[in-house]
Amino acid sequence: MGDSTTIDVESKGKAPVVISKQEKVGGNKKGIAILDLLLRISAMVSALAAAAAMGTSDETLPFFTQFFQFQASYDDIPTFEFFLISMSLVAGYLLLSLPFSIVTIIRPHAAGPRILLLILDTMAVVLATAAGGAAAAIVYLAHNGNSNTNWLAICNQFGDFCQKVSGAVVAAFVAVVILVFMIMLSAFALRRH
Amino acid sequence: MGDSTTIDVESKGKAPVVISKQEKVGGNKKGIAILDLLLRISAMVSALAAAAAMGTSDETLPFFTQFFQFQASYDDIPTFEFFLISMSLVAGYLLLSLPFSIVTIIRPHAAGPRILLLILDTMAVVLATAAGGAAAAIVYLAHNGNSNTNWLAICNQFGDFCQKVSGAVVAAFVAVVILVFMIMLSAFALRRH
Repeated sequence: MGDSTTIDVESKGKAPVVISKQEKVGGNKKGIAILDLLLRISAMVSALAAAAAMGTSDETLPFFTQFFQFQASYDDIPTFEFFLISMSLVAGYLLLSLPFSIVTIIRPHAAGPRILLLILDTMAVVLATAAGGAAAAIVYLAHNGNSNTNWLAICNQFGDFCQKVSGAVVAAFVAVVILVFMIMLSAFALRRH
Repeated sequence: MGDSTTIDVESKGKAPVVISKQEKVGGNKKGIAILDLLLRISAMVSALAAAAAMGTSDETLPFFTQFFQFQASYDDIPTFEFFLISMSLVAGYLLLSLPFSIVTIIRPHAAGPRILLLILDTMAVVLATAAGGAAAAIVYLAHNGNSNTNWLAICNQFGDFCQKVSGAVVAAFVAVVILVFMIMLSAFALRRH
């Protein structure tokens, strides 16, 4: 009888501590989930801005010859087309992933949606980085040219085009940084299960 | 006394079940950790191969004029220099991360090393993808040229150079795919904590 009494006292002493710890962890997870949603929206806006800046980058020079008008557009360069498609895909994915992010706010302890988001986010970050890196290489070439391969800079003639395209690349890398931060947050949230 | 007896029986009945489940989960985690080590070594080899192929890609044409010998090398193109540096960094990081991967084999339940690896792997995959994407854009240009911007293909003259550089890009993307797979595995391993 003496033993069972001490057991009772122990369980009474422990119970509230355990619950409050559980609640605290749940609160942390909920905070991470809300932060994830906000970051997801900002990443979506960045990806959209990147795609929009690239899509509206065409420039027509104000002078022309009898046979030819000088014009630069993203679809002159296949890499920029790839960039536009990739960033649109990433923005679309981020839009579709918003409901899953909301699910992790409502159910902070569900590991399934978090893992799904982490895996898809990793794929999205690879796609966005590949597009950003490829476009950055071409933008660098457009600005500086390369004397070894006889590729001349075109930004002297098409200044506005280059400026818009550079802005698109910057927006893409902003989206990449936010996505990397989201992946890290997901990893931390998964840790506390 | 009756109550305390049933409690004893319950705890005796539960204990082995709990331990065997723990052991099973631990076995899964250990398996994932071993797979992670093997994948890490393959990713390191791929990254090294990419860097080595790029570093040894220089080609000198067998004919020359009085003043000039035709030569192509990775350091003619800044993007390829970036590629070489990035892939060397990724290979170096993967080598340095091997001990941490071994720690997760020895202690399958430690979350710390896994989270550290997941975060650093994410950064490595972004670096490798950016390098691979940038180099792929230039390789595409070297193969196909671009008539809109008057950038001519150089692979007609420097065939061996282009082949080596293309191989390096392929190796880089193999490393990227392996790294993505490693990140997914880490996420799954973290889930079961």
